[in-house]
Amino acid sequence: MIMSRIEAPSDAATGNLVDRLLTGLPAEAVLIDPDVTSSYANDMASFCPAGTPAVVVLPRTVEQVQHVMRIATELRVPVVPQGARTGLSGGANTPEGSIALSLTKMDRILEINPVDRIAVVEPGVVNATLSRAVNEHGLYYPPDPSSWEMCTIGGNIGTASGGLCCVKYGVTAEYVLGLDVVLADGRLMSTGRRTAKGVAGYDLTRLLVGSEGSLGIVVRAVLALKPQPPAQLVLAAEFASATAACDAVCRIMAGGHVPSLLELMDRTTVKAVNDLAHMGLPESTEALLLAAFDTPDPAADLAAVGALCEAAGATQVVPADDVAESELLLQARRLSLTALEAVKGTTMIDDVCVPRSRLGEMLQGVERIAEKYSLTIGVCAHAGDGNTHPTVCFDAADLDESRRARESFDEIMALGLQLGGTITGEHGVGVLKKEWLAREIGPVGVEMQRQIKHVFDPLGILNPGKLF
Amino acid sequence: MIMSRIEAPSDAATGNLVDRLLTGLPAEAVLIDPDVTSSYANDMASFCPAGTPAVVVLPRTVEQVQHVMRIATELRVPVVPQGARTGLSGGANTPEGSIALSLTKMDRILEINPVDRIAVVEPGVVNATLSRAVNEHGLYYPPDPSSWEMCTIGGNIGTASGGLCCVKYGVTAEYVLGLDVVLADGRLMSTGRRTAKGVAGYDLTRLLVGSEGSLGIVVRAVLALKPQPPAQLVLAAEFASATAACDAVCRIMAGGHVPSLLELMDRTTVKAVNDLAHMGLPESTEALLLAAFDTPDPAADLAAVGALCEAAGATQVVPADDVAESELLLQARRLSLTALEAVKGTTMIDDVCVPRSRLGEMLQGVERIAEKYSLTIGVCAHAGDGNTHPTVCFDAADLDESRRARESFDEIMALGLQLGGTITGEHGVGVLKKEWLAREIGPVGVEMQRQIKHVFDPLGILNPGKLF
Repeated sequence: MIMSRIEAPSDAATGNLVDRLLTGLPAEAVLIDPDVTSSYANDMASFCPAGTPAVVVLPRTVEQVQHVMRIATELRVPVVPQGARTGLSGGANTPEGSIALSLTKMDRILEINPVDRIAVVEPGVVNATLSRAVNEHGLYYPPDPSSWEMCTIGGNIGTASGGLCCVKYGVTAEYVLGLDVVLADGRLMSTGRRTAKGVAGYDLTRLLVGSEGSLGIVVRAVLALKPQPPAQLVLAAEFASATAACDAVCRIMAGGHVPSLLELMDRTTVKAVNDLAHMGLPESTEALLLAAFDTPDPAADLAAVGALCEAAGATQVVPADDVAESELLLQARRLSLTALEAVKGTTMIDDVCVPRSRLGEMLQGVERIAEKYSLTIGVCAHAGDGNTHPTVCFDAADLDESRRARESFDEIMALGLQLGGTITGEHGVGVLKKEWLAREIGPVGVEMQRQIKHVFDPLGILNPGKLF
Repeated sequence: MIMSRIEAPSDAATGNLVDRLLTGLPAEAVLIDPDVTSSYANDMASFCPAGTPAVVVLPRTVEQVQHVMRIATELRVPVVPQGARTGLSGGANTPEGSIALSLTKMDRILEINPVDRIAVVEPGVVNATLSRAVNEHGLYYPPDPSSWEMCTIGGNIGTASGGLCCVKYGVTAEYVLGLDVVLADGRLMSTGRRTAKGVAGYDLTRLLVGSEGSLGIVVRAVLALKPQPPAQLVLAAEFASATAACDAVCRIMAGGHVPSLLELMDRTTVKAVNDLAHMGLPESTEALLLAAFDTPDPAADLAAVGALCEAAGATQVVPADDVAESELLLQARRLSLTALEAVKGTTMIDDVCVPRSRLGEMLQGVERIAEKYSLTIGVCAHAGDGNTHPTVCFDAADLDESRRARESFDEIMALGLQLGGTITGEHGVGVLKKEWLAREIGPVGVEMQRQIKHVFDPLGILNPGKLF
């Protein structure tokens, strides 16, 4: 692992690094107190390896980011770009002695244009802040990761993150039209466009989206917006087996419906949410399906989908009467990961996406794996996308259980690949899954990807030890 | 220009090339008759430079494509991948002595899956064939370039082509989930996925889409499908000025409407269509706007949009009564380019896309340019996307007019860039616009793109002389 091979710099080297950084950054933007720097070492995959960065920088301008990268190139110091560090794969974890480049102070919304349906933003803008700002113009920025109240657009771009809306609206990648990017050597490159369409040259915008800070530092983004849809109405359906719930998902999608959300919570997740928040979800259920529509006549769509759920064997179908009731159901879903974390103190959250026609097999397989390793594994899923989050609950202090957790986590990825899926639907590779990336994309793919990395980052200073 | 620097191979060299190709291809897949090979020299930008290929190959399998690329690498022979050669930028034009690699015989639809909403196809499948095949499953493949009855999916992927549907459904790029690609040296690489979401590694799929055959040969594609929407209903609105029509476009888009089509034809285009097809379009109009909706209640949407057109000064607003009347209106739009070609015998079709808020300025500018050069320039536009096709009509036998045509064509691109637009919304760069690409993406962008090209094609044999 590259991360562990990088040696901690000497105090003199760190002193020199800091002095050089201070030639282009104000003092308050350069943090070296170890209590502070160590707090920037991790994203939310806290069990992934990380060292303490030598320095945390908090630039406020593009020029300051360029300055940081010029110094990093000059001194060959690794740089880890960071947003709110809500990632789940260790993509923002820092090597010992590196520069943690936090973009959180570059948080201005530069433009919202209702005719062109675009927003221009700095990377540190929080997802929810942008969402609310565009709402005021009758516009909608769909990507809604679970951490949307905290996570930044820059971080969302780094992992091409998804959310609950993707079954209808797609992931972050589909909303990024153009980028300004500071390259490893400090040069500024613009990619893409602010027009609705454009095919001038290779699509470097999409190459950068999801590249986890390993190709360049995004300092500005042009984002596509949609008109704000009507508020969605949610239906909950209970099933006597996860297989029946997955069958309902297939019927809904094959039936040509376009739900704005189609989520699944298994028995373990339902119980965990009740334990945490006393929400009174039906614990007798084996799987709970939530479907929503933001169409002109959502009640009609819910009725049609409810009938398909019943045909698939739903034991109960409850459409929400209004938006408030709908929000309550969604809140249960949004609490899932927190609730599962409370089960044993620590979780490893898988992110396997399979073709939705294989969703039933995926859930059955996870159940077998949980039994095999004597573990609690709760599954919540963006079922309409086939994107499952099997969440392994374990006690990090129990070494044997931790080992079994890691093994089951890997076995879940193997199952996903076997079913024609991917190891990561929306969380990214980071540190957590880098051994698995090669298994998914094969040796030729890895070789081409490594060469592209080399084009952008010949010295290997941009977020080293991630992805490959 | 690289193309003119490549020397024609000697007869002996061509003989050797053909012999080597025949070791892995059946005789009927290797064409050397000069009457035949010269007919593969051009796409529809016939005025762009091209030489005669030494040989045309028509592989039927992935292995045969790999064989062709291995021989091309061994003998350092340029290869130009081709579909139906309906492109408009010379992207499929061949250098003298090259291999024209036609993918038209690899035309199988391998899978259509209504639950996963995907199709798996070979590159030679004709767009209309795929569209009709998925329709039978209640599914919809949106991208609809004007040439959809002829053009192939492989060609569509090469140029990331658009069409009339893009204002609601986006371009080809948004429907390509995964690719199998034969690299320059004959190795096979798979990119992407067949799942709804996936972020494992860099997005090589999107890098390849729109790369005009310069990075690899697409031999298989996994395409995303949508449920088939209701048939669309069209409204036509006449305006006393192009500016007023563009104002209507802005009002419609700012008003949160989601038309399935929003097209503009200027006076010159309307007249050309009438002259060609005697369709009885209103020649008194300065601009005709066509808007369509494929929503559950299209009549209501058309009424709302009609009111906005009137508010913007429309002199007449005519909603179609039914699908048949709608189709007639669309036919007029689809005939535009053919009709403009009939004006003077030859056209150069620009493809400038501007932010839709600048559409009015774009059209005014094109009018000024037409006057300046004493030329007929008709504009039809995917107005909802800001994607204009100013079409310069000229007599290719008139050298002075041809020169003025080229100069006006360039001046239109300059105007587009000045308005914050792109030189190509959907037709690609090819040969026609390669001098302009650098002006749009800047020196750093060009350098990174060239280096990426070098990663995929170190010998420079893949469609040389295009893009850069």
